[in-house]
Amino acid sequence: MKKIILSVAALAAVFTAQSREQDSLMFRKISDDIMLHGTCYDNLRVLCKTVGHRLSGTPAADKAVKWGEKAMKGTGADRVWLQPANVPVWHRGKESLELKLNGKYRAVPTLSLGNSEGTGGKTLEAPIVMVNTFDEYMALPESAVKDKIVFFNYRFRQDLVNSFEGYGDAVKYRWNSPNIAAKRGAAGIIIRSISTGEDNFPHTGSMHYADSVKKLPEMAIGNRTADALEFACKTGTVAARMTSECTMRKELAPSFNVIGEIKGTEEPEKIITVGGHLDSWDVGEGAHDDGAGCVQAIEVLRAFKALGIKPKYTIRAVLFMNEENGVAGGNAYADSAIARKEQHILAIESDAGGFSPRGIGFEMSPEQKEKILKYTDLFRPYNVYDFTMEEGGVDIGPIHRKLKVPAAGLIPDSQRYFDYHHTNNDVFEQVNHRELKLGAVTLAQLIYLVNVHGI
Amino acid sequence: MKKIILSVAALAAVFTAQSREQDSLMFRKISDDIMLHGTCYDNLRVLCKTVGHRLSGTPAADKAVKWGEKAMKGTGADRVWLQPANVPVWHRGKESLELKLNGKYRAVPTLSLGNSEGTGGKTLEAPIVMVNTFDEYMALPESAVKDKIVFFNYRFRQDLVNSFEGYGDAVKYRWNSPNIAAKRGAAGIIIRSISTGEDNFPHTGSMHYADSVKKLPEMAIGNRTADALEFACKTGTVAARMTSECTMRKELAPSFNVIGEIKGTEEPEKIITVGGHLDSWDVGEGAHDDGAGCVQAIEVLRAFKALGIKPKYTIRAVLFMNEENGVAGGNAYADSAIARKEQHILAIESDAGGFSPRGIGFEMSPEQKEKILKYTDLFRPYNVYDFTMEEGGVDIGPIHRKLKVPAAGLIPDSQRYFDYHHTNNDVFEQVNHRELKLGAVTLAQLIYLVNVHGI
Repeated sequence: MKKIILSVAALAAVFTAQSREQDSLMFRKISDDIMLHGTCYDNLRVLCKTVGHRLSGTPAADKAVKWGEKAMKGTGADRVWLQPANVPVWHRGKESLELKLNGKYRAVPTLSLGNSEGTGGKTLEAPIVMVNTFDEYMALPESAVKDKIVFFNYRFRQDLVNSFEGYGDAVKYRWNSPNIAAKRGAAGIIIRSISTGEDNFPHTGSMHYADSVKKLPEMAIGNRTADALEFACKTGTVAARMTSECTMRKELAPSFNVIGEIKGTEEPEKIITVGGHLDSWDVGEGAHDDGAGCVQAIEVLRAFKALGIKPKYTIRAVLFMNEENGVAGGNAYADSAIARKEQHILAIESDAGGFSPRGIGFEMSPEQKEKILKYTDLFRPYNVYDFTMEEGGVDIGPIHRKLKVPAAGLIPDSQRYFDYHHTNNDVFEQVNHRELKLGAVTLAQLIYLVNVHGI
Repeated sequence: MKKIILSVAALAAVFTAQSREQDSLMFRKISDDIMLHGTCYDNLRVLCKTVGHRLSGTPAADKAVKWGEKAMKGTGADRVWLQPANVPVWHRGKESLELKLNGKYRAVPTLSLGNSEGTGGKTLEAPIVMVNTFDEYMALPESAVKDKIVFFNYRFRQDLVNSFEGYGDAVKYRWNSPNIAAKRGAAGIIIRSISTGEDNFPHTGSMHYADSVKKLPEMAIGNRTADALEFACKTGTVAARMTSECTMRKELAPSFNVIGEIKGTEEPEKIITVGGHLDSWDVGEGAHDDGAGCVQAIEVLRAFKALGIKPKYTIRAVLFMNEENGVAGGNAYADSAIARKEQHILAIESDAGGFSPRGIGFEMSPEQKEKILKYTDLFRPYNVYDFTMEEGGVDIGPIHRKLKVPAAGLIPDSQRYFDYHHTNNDVFEQVNHRELKLGAVTLAQLIYLVNVHGI
């Protein structure tokens, strides 16, 4: 008996070694195919240069949907369709910010924050009060800030090596400043951009108004303008003229997620999703955020088809609509999955830029994570080594929360992301072809792994 | 007795844990100081924008030496000096390449390879013979290539994830093509640039002539021109007109390494060197290659001074002259160390671009490496995880070989390096401030570690 047990164990070891070698070989084939024949970089060029930025509910977003449908069909996917999602429509219109530095008004580069209400096209002129933090603001008497324009001068923490930590730390000054400022009767808000940039690009991005709070206009300035304004506030009195037309439309607009899939050969009812978001802010070209994630998801289908991989589970690439200011697409995807009683075994998101992949984050049970971690040394030759973060993504958030679907997020190198994020500088030229492709390699490898070994 | 032994062991464990925590805290302090107060990015801007490219033996290189001396003094180093090194002087002069595609001559972007002899300003006009490899070339009869211009159309292998492997694979077509081509009587050489670029920048770089071989002119073209030429060669007959004045001067020119040091407090006779090279090719601004390494080495001294670290060993930052085409500076440094009977315990080089650091390579005995590897998990929070490569550097090569000094090389992410390497596109704007600084952090942390624990 003991002998037989040993033999079974030995046999299992041989099988494991063989399976591991097969996995390693397929990892290599996937990488070679994408690095040599991948189309994601070319696809991104077309998206960026023929569509450009594509805010939810705009004609550009409609054009992006058409582009996505065509690109998805180009992979040879078994099925491509559009999934309806009604999206909010925020309109920027004209905007300007003038700062009175050295006694003279000068226009500076600015962007109103997404979802904010502007000045109705009128000019709001008021003295500026600078504070570095919410606490500093709340410590001021109402008389000091009433009817003033508050400059929230909080700096992105460059000492944090993972720039997403710095973002998490600073983003409340974009998201919540109007609600804090309204508590003391301020008239408008300027924020230092949530930016690691050594430049002067203003960064837009979503904010929100709390219920029953006065909707104050909020504008972002680039780091160099913020430095100048900081200096001026420390040495004298400064005023601003804010003029903006931005507003949230009352009606939602019809839009779509774009979905392509390869049908599973053995258990087609089980679905692995990989996606990015198709919408962007209304600046730049949405190259890193998140054209990159879209073309990488499409690349996964292309590579599987090109390599003749016939997955046992169904593989879906999804271009989600409206991640930036509503997550209507992510919610529609989850709601449809619930209505159709779909069985999702994994959802993966790429929405942290088209940079060299460093790791994969997991939001799933310890048992599920443990199963995947057994294989993660296979990623090491591709410089993907970090599996410690608890990360999924915004668009797969609803399906993760509502259906308890295990979630994973691609983690690229984070150093440059917040230089470009939500700016006019998030353009195709800032994406490196090899870095972008390597991200797609990681996604395809992870899907290959889960398809073979389950989760 | 057993009790005492246990106590000693327990005490040792406590000491180890304390020492580890101290190391970890100092790693953090070093990182915070450089990320928040580091001057390497500003220094690089000055080097790139006021000196620009700086080929050995040119007035620009002299200017770079002066810049380096001033920057080194700015760190508060205990001593700064210039170390003589006589360098070769290669002169590019005017150059042009015209290709006859579709029956018409058109000028294309080109760069003669460094050290090569041109056409003496005359025009060499001849039909082009395209081959992909040396083997293909050697398989042709002499009649097919005699007096022709050979186009070596070898492609950089984009499937290799570490682009330095791709460089190692392809660079022989830059270095050795004239010697191979001369064996069959060719008149001149065009090569596809040693480039990962999805663009059309030609890449220069060093080549050499074997003894008693006819010195054929060699010019590089960018990837897009090479694609067009490849297509034309496959579909018809193509000719070229090469005109170039480049030549190697007969006389060496006087130049210098720039050295700054912090004197050790306990064993000042033991020296740790960290360096990059100050010279560059005569194109672009030598930003990644290797302005980055220079400003990072300078940053190490600045950070040690700013943090009040008084090293027990002497720490030297060295800006080596003439890495690109002669290594006169690296040799002078080693020869001086021998003449002065200096005791070098570690030499570290940063010459792989100012990108996010990924690891450190080691060229040293297994025992020395083992000692360092005990501490390398301290680098993990900084995304530095790869200590597997056997890598030192070109400039510390002589001291490593001649004096058996343990060598280490900074290993940054390699994806973008060979897009910019030796091109007009290797400019300051291609360097990210956070990535550059993180590389300096890794260098300073390694030196801190070896200074505390020895090697």
